[in-house]
Amino acid sequence: MSLLLTLFQDTSEAAAVLEQVNGDMGMLWMLIAGILVFLMQAGFTLVESGMTRSKNAVNIAMKNLLDICVGSLTFWLVGYSLMYGDTSNGWFFWSGLFQGEGADLFFQTMFAATAATIVSGAIAGRTKYTTYIVFSIVMTAIIYPISGGWQWQGEGWLTELGFIDFAGSSIVHSVGGWAALVAAFMVGPRIGKFVDGKVLPIPGHNQVLATLGVFILWFGWFGFNGGSQLAWGGADATGASNVVLVTNLAAAAGGLGALITTWIWYGKPNLAQTLNGSLAGLVSITAGCGNMTPEGGVLAGLIGGIIVVFSIEFIEKKLKIDDAIGAASVHGVAGAWGTLVIGLWGVDGDTGIGLFNGGGASQLGAQAIGVLAYAVWAVVLSFIVFGILKATMGLRVSKEVEIEGLDISEHGSIAYPGKRVREYDEDK
Amino acid sequence: MSLLLTLFQDTSEAAAVLEQVNGDMGMLWMLIAGILVFLMQAGFTLVESGMTRSKNAVNIAMKNLLDICVGSLTFWLVGYSLMYGDTSNGWFFWSGLFQGEGADLFFQTMFAATAATIVSGAIAGRTKYTTYIVFSIVMTAIIYPISGGWQWQGEGWLTELGFIDFAGSSIVHSVGGWAALVAAFMVGPRIGKFVDGKVLPIPGHNQVLATLGVFILWFGWFGFNGGSQLAWGGADATGASNVVLVTNLAAAAGGLGALITTWIWYGKPNLAQTLNGSLAGLVSITAGCGNMTPEGGVLAGLIGGIIVVFSIEFIEKKLKIDDAIGAASVHGVAGAWGTLVIGLWGVDGDTGIGLFNGGGASQLGAQAIGVLAYAVWAVVLSFIVFGILKATMGLRVSKEVEIEGLDISEHGSIAYPGKRVREYDEDK
Amino acid sequence: MSLLLTLFQDTSEAAAVLEQVNGDMGMLWMLIAGILVFLMQAGFTLVESGMTRSKNAVNIAMKNLLDICVGSLTFWLVGYSLMYGDTSNGWFFWSGLFQGEGADLFFQTMFAATAATIVSGAIAGRTKYTTYIVFSIVMTAIIYPISGGWQWQGEGWLTELGFIDFAGSSIVHSVGGWAALVAAFMVGPRIGKFVDGKVLPIPGHNQVLATLGVFILWFGWFGFNGGSQLAWGGADATGASNVVLVTNLAAAAGGLGALITTWIWYGKPNLAQTLNGSLAGLVSITAGCGNMTPEGGVLAGLIGGIIVVFSIEFIEKKLKIDDAIGAASVHGVAGAWGTLVIGLWGVDGDTGIGLFNGGGASQLGAQAIGVLAYAVWAVVLSFIVFGILKATMGLRVSKEVEIEGLDISEHGSIAYPGKRVREYDEDK
Repeated sequence: MSLLLTLFQDTSEAAAVLEQVNGDMGMLWMLIAGILVFLMQAGFTLVESGMTRSKNAVNIAMKNLLDICVGSLTFWLVGYSLMYGDTSNGWFFWSGLFQGEGADLFFQTMFAATAATIVSGAIAGRTKYTTYIVFSIVMTAIIYPISGGWQWQGEGWLTELGFIDFAGSSIVHSVGGWAALVAAFMVGPRIGKFVDGKVLPIPGHNQVLATLGVFILWFGWFGFNGGSQLAWGGADATGASNVVLVTNLAAAAGGLGALITTWIWYGKPNLAQTLNGSLAGLVSITAGCGNMTPEGGVLAGLIGGIIVVFSIEFIEKKLKIDDAIGAASVHGVAGAWGTLVIGLWGVDGDTGIGLFNGGGASQLGAQAIGVLAYAVWAVVLSFIVFGILKATMGLRVSKEVEIEGLDISEHGSIAYPGKRVREYDEDK
Repeated sequence: MSLLLTLFQDTSEAAAVLEQVNGDMGMLWMLIAGILVFLMQAGFTLVESGMTRSKNAVNIAMKNLLDICVGSLTFWLVGYSLMYGDTSNGWFFWSGLFQGEGADLFFQTMFAATAATIVSGAIAGRTKYTTYIVFSIVMTAIIYPISGGWQWQGEGWLTELGFIDFAGSSIVHSVGGWAALVAAFMVGPRIGKFVDGKVLPIPGHNQVLATLGVFILWFGWFGFNGGSQLAWGGADATGASNVVLVTNLAAAAGGLGALITTWIWYGKPNLAQTLNGSLAGLVSITAGCGNMTPEGGVLAGLIGGIIVVFSIEFIEKKLKIDDAIGAASVHGVAGAWGTLVIGLWGVDGDTGIGLFNGGGASQLGAQAIGVLAYAVWAVVLSFIVFGILKATMGLRVSKEVEIEGLDISEHGSIAYPGKRVREYDEDK
Repeated sequence: MSLLLTLFQDTSEAAAVLEQVNGDMGMLWMLIAGILVFLMQAGFTLVESGMTRSKNAVNIAMKNLLDICVGSLTFWLVGYSLMYGDTSNGWFFWSGLFQGEGADLFFQTMFAATAATIVSGAIAGRTKYTTYIVFSIVMTAIIYPISGGWQWQGEGWLTELGFIDFAGSSIVHSVGGWAALVAAFMVGPRIGKFVDGKVLPIPGHNQVLATLGVFILWFGWFGFNGGSQLAWGGADATGASNVVLVTNLAAAAGGLGALITTWIWYGKPNLAQTLNGSLAGLVSITAGCGNMTPEGGVLAGLIGGIIVVFSIEFIEKKLKIDDAIGAASVHGVAGAWGTLVIGLWGVDGDTGIGLFNGGGASQLGAQAIGVLAYAVWAVVLSFIVFGILKATMGLRVSKEVEIEGLDISEHGSIAYPGKRVREYDEDK
């Protein structure tokens, strides 16, 4: 494109046409990408629902619906402004209410909703719906946008530092993942998870739906990462295409990494972990998809898929935190890894910027600072929010409600009504 | 774009390139939008199936498959011509068989199939499959295209009147919704719905699938509304982007509206109604998505989500009509509301055209006439079609078939073959 | 476009802009089309899972995940080069490891994964996971790419012959379908399928998910066929749009063809066969979607939908081969039909190239040679691979494992864990 523009320096009409069209194509790509990201809400619902008990499936659907409903409104009301507004110090941004418009606001809104929804699964099965509502509002209106601006506003302190997070391994996924970890810790484990010092499995109720959910997330992720190019035309077209390609390779490698790891570690190739591995592969490439060769992306995803298996075990068995679907590992740990890996073997065009490909340690340092900054921010803010909620309205439902399932007491209906009344069932 | 074209008045090459490219981008957007709308058929199948009994799930799948199969053929054969053909009076259109082509015909076909499929859910659980086939053919070949031409052909009488229905709140959804109401009335209620003067609930069998269905519908609706810009490039690019943005905001507001309403009204935030609320929010913005500020869209969707809760109660408890999934409320009532709201606070660019934002009452009058015209048309035609069907082949299956479920007698198989031998359930 | 380029022969700036933009739009369309094709993996998972027993659903999910994970890596590593590399003889292609990039590699990768996944369903319920892994690698790395190059590399021997397979009725679907037939024959039937000379039905466990799967496949197929235009802009824009339109018409006709056929043949309109009919309609238009009028596409799809019903019966009852989901009929037989039909009533622009529309027999001859070549290639290679596997690691799980379901012994978990507490499962 730049070549063409140079060629046209004296032919302003053709150059103006190209500029106009590139802008229009960029808007088309962002809009379609945002539509793809929207469907990730369905993917999260299926993964979270499929990996937990059916007695809480209505509650999970209601939380995911809430995230997109609340997130769409809060991010439009204040979030966009807190993330992309004017700044004087690179830490805090604001330009008034109701900023943002069109394809850009739409695309960014979907990211805010994603950050919130990551927390939903971790605390499934025992958390009050009212509590979740408050957290969802705070997440999409305050926690996510403020720290997101540090990098994506363009003049934030992490941008100045040289930190790279192309599509949000840290900004979206780690922030969501660490919040999920704090939330799971604060809410406490589900009844029956830790008994007499043993960690008991609480299997999900529908692995087919969980699989469908992962495919839908993977599908939406092409918009999540590819759309983060924020443009189309010339170098942006090949750039976004490469982003999508390397995203797919990393997801594939992540799935295989987990599949093989579980085969060696547990003796059998495990579905739930392979699903988590693919998601971890996706999270692991989200920061670096614009700064990674295909080979580098495969390696990043593969390691992400391996890490996630052990991270889930560690959080469950060592930290004794009941993260019901492994959200902290998939989004938090893999998100941190995906951010750091740019400092290990990331590239900037043809130039290596990572420690292992001739780029020195400075990029790795910037990445580490970013990882730490987002972790501290998410952990501290989540502790404050859940702490206040615990002291005021309470975090958990009663033991009776938890055992019966949240669907009945919190929402007055069950996910599979036919099953309860088997005496006179539909199938007779 | 117009600025550029002016600039190029003496530079025809660049102007010709821009015109060519804008046409190509518009075709790309319409094609992709049509593909998104296609997936709405899957969304309808899941919503209708999830919200009704499993013993009729095969029948519902067969009806939705029929709609897209029949609709694709009839709309290509005669529908497109009846909707977009030549006209001498603005009421009736025709240009011969097999009109329409490419992305345009594809996009419009998906709308015809949607109009038909709305009826499917309302009459679930007791309607003969043969009856439905005839209705589906008449709907996609005659009822929908003729009245659709009044507005979308460009020289129809409603267009001349100043009526606005950007993407079909009335043309698609109300026509489908009113037909659904008539159909549900003519077919009569399911056994066990109204017993001894009481209205009994007949819960659906899978709320997780219903939730997935709503997410898929929401996803497809971005194509439904955004694609109705029918173009891309310059003002059309920003226009279509704003359409998608306001569509999402209205859906979010509709979901929240229903969530809060059920919380207040029934004591608990209800999933099925929140799902209906989001759909109602989408229907409520479908007419006005090109003539609404984001604030106006949020308000339109919010009210739509509130209305739908009471409308479902009203139709069930007062009219005693058994609309199995609330289709008449979601599509008919919210569709009428979404059409009228343009006359209340719609805009045309920066100019208010609604009663409450300085536009006077004339737009509201045009909207009201359109709402009424589509209601009368759909109700009268549906009465005629279902009346003839009732007098000839009959509308309902036998009592025995209904109790056993339509799947076995109408289609010779059941949706979940394994369930036949169960004694007790997984949730205990 | 060519007109414009002529107009601009002296105005290189505008012509260069148009060329640049057309390239960028083509890349955008291919990328989005590839993303759509990706989701077909979810569709295959649902169809295969829904049409077989729940005790093997985890295994099916693991096989489909494997296909996309392995296929993405192998096709990037060697497959692309074996398909699109340099050639000296038109039969074998190679340009070194790690060829292909960006949107093109991404799009082509999805086709390779599709070819592999077709086999998965046919051999469901009794095949060792390790065996499947080896086959999946060989399919995506060797079998599919080598023969694909014969036509799509551009200088292959089938291209030279005048053979037409626009989007892969033979190259993808027949190759997958014939491999599935050989695989099902080599692995042998499921226990309980053929008993005392009778063919017993083994019904699937979830026809709603199977229906969702078909809608998702249909949705993805618009990318599969439309994206095979490999370009956008001018004639390519209208070309790709027509491809999508005729694809939809053929799918609709195929669904209706099977629906009506089962109604006449079995007495009731059958869901599973209608689903297969739509898929067969899609397969039947995949080769000819760029060389078929809408009328011709409808007829091709309709016949494909009729053929598939009898083909499934023939393979089951006459050949006594247990193809668990009818993959050989849907992809193999309909794929052959879809390839041949171009020689019967295909068109090239406004010129008939088929036997029945004035084109003579030469095109039909070329199509027949191609059909035969892909059949021989797929059958022979599959016999070799499965023969070696049978002689070494074995193809089948033990009788005990098969009866219990593969999920527990092969993967250590079940799809619907809640069902574990049942006295007896649906599968016994």
